[in-house]
Order: sequence, then structure tokens, then C-alpha cells
Amino acid sequence: MDYLHEEDLDYIAIGAAILGAGGGGDPYIGKLMAKQAIKKHGKVKLIKTDEVPDDELVIPSAMMGAPAVMLEKLPNGSEPENAFRSLETHLGEKAYAVMPIEAGGLNSCIPIYTAACLGLPLIDADGMGRAFPELPMTTFSVGGISSTPMVLCDEKGNKILLETINNDWSETLARTATVAMGLSSMIAIYCMNGQELKKYSIKGTISFAKEIGQRLVEANKSKSDPIEGLLEVSGGFRLFEGKITDVQRTLTSGFIRGKVSMEGIEGYKGSDFDLEFQNENLVGCLDSVPVALTPDLITVLDKEKGFPITTENLKYGQRVTVVGIPCDPFWRTEAGLAQVGPKYFNYDFDYSPIEKLAAGRA
Amino acid sequence: MDYLHEEDLDYIAIGAAILGAGGGGDPYIGKLMAKQAIKKHGKVKLIKTDEVPDDELVIPSAMMGAPAVMLEKLPNGSEPENAFRSLETHLGEKAYAVMPIEAGGLNSCIPIYTAACLGLPLIDADGMGRAFPELPMTTFSVGGISSTPMVLCDEKGNKILLETINNDWSETLARTATVAMGLSSMIAIYCMNGQELKKYSIKGTISFAKEIGQRLVEANKSKSDPIEGLLEVSGGFRLFEGKITDVQRTLTSGFIRGKVSMEGIEGYKGSDFDLEFQNENLVGCLDSVPVALTPDLITVLDKEKGFPITTENLKYGQRVTVVGIPCDPFWRTEAGLAQVGPKYFNYDFDYSPIEKLAAGRA
Repeated sequence: MDYLHEEDLDYIAIGAAILGAGGGGDPYIGKLMAKQAIKKHGKVKLIKTDEVPDDELVIPSAMMGAPAVMLEKLPNGSEPENAFRSLETHLGEKAYAVMPIEAGGLNSCIPIYTAACLGLPLIDADGMGRAFPELPMTTFSVGGISSTPMVLCDEKGNKILLETINNDWSETLARTATVAMGLSSMIAIYCMNGQELKKYSIKGTISFAKEIGQRLVEANKSKSDPIEGLLEVSGGFRLFEGKITDVQRTLTSGFIRGKVSMEGIEGYKGSDFDLEFQNENLVGCLDSVPVALTPDLITVLDKEKGFPITTENLKYGQRVTVVGIPCDPFWRTEAGLAQVGPKYFNYDFDYSPIEKLAAGRA
Repeated sequence: MDYLHEEDLDYIAIGAAILGAGGGGDPYIGKLMAKQAIKKHGKVKLIKTDEVPDDELVIPSAMMGAPAVMLEKLPNGSEPENAFRSLETHLGEKAYAVMPIEAGGLNSCIPIYTAACLGLPLIDADGMGRAFPELPMTTFSVGGISSTPMVLCDEKGNKILLETINNDWSETLARTATVAMGLSSMIAIYCMNGQELKKYSIKGTISFAKEIGQRLVEANKSKSDPIEGLLEVSGGFRLFEGKITDVQRTLTSGFIRGKVSMEGIEGYKGSDFDLEFQNENLVGCLDSVPVALTPDLITVLDKEKGFPITTENLKYGQRVTVVGIPCDPFWRTEAGLAQVGPKYFNYDFDYSPIEKLAAGRA
């Protein structure tokens, strides 16, 4: 796969939303934007990290904030390009390529949109291999790369350039600014060179998302179980099948936080499942026993067709399948877990890999 | 007066704090900073607006946020210079001079500090002729000058460059950032050329502050009434003499808001005075009848020696004199009153000049 075409966007948006673990935003708006940009500017070249020269500049492009808000507060379309170009101007250097910062419905599409608008290639890699709610939660940050200089743009035309002393301050100041901008902004962040990219990124995210999405769509066409293909390519686990009986959701400080309760159906009858989320799904408990813990991926899928449901779209009465997928080994290191493990999110669990938790149940 | 020396700072800090109308910050920290900078770098050249060539760049330097916080969260000293130089770098142009944005204890001293550190002259003018709580409340803004690009720096080393679509958005985004930075920041803002400076600034603020301060100190030395000299040079009015019986003060969204109640003494026995403030004193009522309204200046002075008391230092039991001073004619225009009149601050009074209110009482 050397180029991304308009039709690939459907697959990528689905696959990345599954990898987004409930977060990364509803892909709808982002997918429309990226498709439109490809229609206007032409297909986007997808390159591997090895293809980027060591000394060339690469800049991730993303949406920051509460994805739910963006469904009503539409971008004007120039923000991603504006943020990207402003960062280049500040650095006094042109970028070689665009890249995603995370895998997520919206944030897999935004960098494709940006790449199409700018006529730049897109790098098939990201900084999470999933989605996470805060800026420092990237493999880049664990690798010591500064998130700033970074630029935030809103749809009104306001622009902010941040230079901070560390990535936690970037999170604080960029989050506050994003909230003030109306809970969402478009950002250019974590600029790095090709050498850093190769060392600290998670490879193949976009093509992996495309493969997941394509298998899901094909399974639906052939009326076979859409979950099986996902578990096969991802090494994942079917954690639960049930009906959502309660959703508690609050929008505070630019985050959607909450808890979903489910009641088992079919093979899971008599069991219940609790899922805690902070933008992303973070802790899944089957009958009060943890079966999947951040940074492993927990995704809620529509039981019938296997399409992913992001945290802002979870509703009472939905019949769902909960799937768990092992995270990239990068996150299972001590430094990785310090940044994105259960303790960081104030859950009182020690991390245990999803495979090990599954083996314990078997 | 061509140069500002270390000893001038005492006069300027007092005079500017009186013009600050309760706001603009306690001068203590700013005065120490400016004195130290003059000791280290030498006296600061004070120039008139006419001396600035029309096409030269000038940049105001100031502290933003709640002055009360700065008494505990000390600057590291490099922020004003850092903000100023970063703005120059962004503009790709060196500034001809530094200037104050407002008259106020702290914000008259900060630009002197900045000028001393940078070895630049200070312009004897500002954008308020007093102090006000929000960024768009400047004669510059009324003149259509953009507050951005602006730079904010905190004492930790974080830096923000803002480019907004209007000065209200600058206020929103810079205020939010300042709150996130710990309620205070150092800013470089409202860059303009010499021509705009001449057209939209209030002239002679620094030398006026110095004159007021000097007369007050001399009156104290000669044990004469310190208030008389102030009223003489400013065309002001003695509004009340009393004892503070209540202070309601809250710190919200980066602002100190509140109300002071006073009970009359001596010639004012039997009367009471209510003073409403939002960082600055905005409305003064004698026996429930307004006697001074923003944008006219209302300043509370220590009754004995005539030294100004900023809103954050007002305390129960203080014996004070309340003075009112006519504001610059610039503020009495329709555009000026729309920006800083009583209605803007949500007070249900139509503006009436302090002289007229005084004539009505007589």
C-alpha cells in the first residue's frame, strides 16, 4: 500500500476507532474532511519510518479536546494546515512529512486531511498505537522528545504557540487553551527528526488500522462473525457480550469521564461488566474482577456488525461485544506504565498484561 | 527629567499606585526589581512620544494577573525581557523603546525594569492613564490596535505566543493561560509603531506619577496635608474620610472582586461610603449616591500620610481618605465608555463625570 485513496478512509476510520479504545474521537467528521481533501488534492502517499531521512523534520497533526464537541462545533478546515505551517515557520524549516500522534477515529483522519491539504506524505506510524487522553502519553514523551514548540488553532482564527519546560506543562497550558477555545482545537506538536521518529514511534499504525477495518467490512459482507477477524489480526480477546444498563458520563476540564455498566447476554448471561473511561476505556472488570487494564486496549463494539462505539456514543440499551487487545510492548516498560498505567489514572490496580489475566481465568 | 534614577522609583511607584485606582498591583516587588535593574544596568532614559520616529516599533511591557499572587509567587526576573525579546523575534524587528500599558504601582515599575534590563529608553506614556482589569481596556484598543501578537512568560520558563482575531479573544486566552500559569505572568503586548503611539496613547503618565509621588513625600516631610498637593496637580476631589468597617473580597478567574464599606469620621461623621472594585476601584457611593464612576479614578489613601492602598491591601479598621480624579478625556468618548464605563462592568449607572457629580452635591 503506497497511497491512501478516498475509499481507504472508511477502513482506516473503522480500524483506528477500534484501536482508539473508545477515544480518539468519532471518526465521522474527520473522515468526511479527509475524503474531501483527497478528492480535491489527490491521493496521499503513505511512507514507512525507514523512508524518512534521519535529519528531516516530521510533525504530527491532531485534534485536541473533547471529540463530542467537534460534532457540533465544526472546523473551518484551515486550522490543521495553519497550525502545521505556523510551526514550520517558527522552526524555520519545512517538514518532510505529516504523521498521526495517536490511533483513533478522528485522529487517524486529521493527519491524512493535513497531508492531503499540504501535499506531503503521511508516515505509517504514531506515538501511541492506540488513543490516550493526555499529551504526555506518547512513546515520544517516554523517549524524551519535547511536545513543544506546539501550535494550537481554533475555527475562529485564534492561534497559540506554546513553548514549555516539560510535557506536563504542555498538557496543562494546551488543555486550558483548548477549553477556552471552545473545548476543541487543531494542533501541530512533537516535531522531531527522522532518527527520533524511527526510535520512538509505533510502526505501521495506519496500515494496521486499514487491515482491521477492511476485514471487518468484508466479514459483514460475507455475513461471517466480524469479531473473529479482529481477534485474529490483533491477538485480542473477546471479554464480554452484553447489554448496556447504565452510562454515567460527565464533561469536565475538557475530558469526558464516566463508567458503563453492562449485563451479560448469551454465553455471558448472569455476569456483569463494568467499564471505566476517561476519554478512552481504561479498566474493564468482569463480575468485579479486572480482565483488561490500561495500557492494553479495551474496545466496545456493536454486537451485530462489530463496528466500534466511542465513549461519547455509548448509550443505554446497546447490545455490545467488549474486546481487549494487547498494547505495544513499548507501553509495558516501567517508563511506559508510569505514564499510562492504571495507577496514573488513579485506579487502584497493578498492571497485568491482558494475556496473563486471560490465562488466569482459563 | 531625561533619565530615571533609582530614587525616582519611590516617587513613581507611589504616584502610579494612586493613578492605579486601587489596581495595577502593589508596587513593592516591582519597585525592588526596577531599582535593582537600574543599579545593575544604569539609569533609564525617559523619552516623549514625539521623540519616537513614526515607523519605529514600540512594545509595552507588563505583568498580567492577580497582583496579590505576585507578592508570594516571585518572578525569576528574566520573564519581562524574555517576553519582550520573543515578540521582537516573532516580528523580525528590534524595538525602539519600551512603554507601560497602564499606570499602576506594579505596572509602572515593570516596564522600567524591562527598559533597564534591555538598555532601551522608556516612553513617558501609557494606554490607560490609570489601571484597568482587562486587556482590551486600553486607548490602543479603542484606536483599533491589535493586542496580538503577544507573548506571556511565567517564572517557571513556560512561554506562550498568542495571535487572536480580536482583543476580547486575547483577554480570554491570555487570562486563561495566566490563571493556568499560577495567576500571574509577564507579557509583551500591543506592539505598535511611533505614529500609532502618538495618536492613541495617554501622554506623560510616568512624569505625572513622579510628580504626584514627589509632592506626597515632600508634604509628609514638611508635615503638611499630603492630600492637598494631589488634588491640586490632578484636579481631583476629596470624596470621603472614614474607617473601613467591612471588606468583601474574592479571587475568581484571575481577578480580585469585592466591596468595601466605610463609616465616616470627622467632617464625614454620620455618612457612609461604599466602594465596589474589580481589581480596580470602579464605583464609589456616598450615602448610597454615586460620587465617582469608572472611568474616573477612585483611590483609597491612608488618612494619615496619604499613601495609596491597593484593593488587595484594604483591611478592616484602616482610616482612609477616598479621592476621585477625572480620567483622561479619551475615556469620556462614546467608544471609551463602551469599553470601560459603568455598564461594561455590570453596574446599573449611567456615567457622569466626577466634576459634574461634585457640582451636583455643592
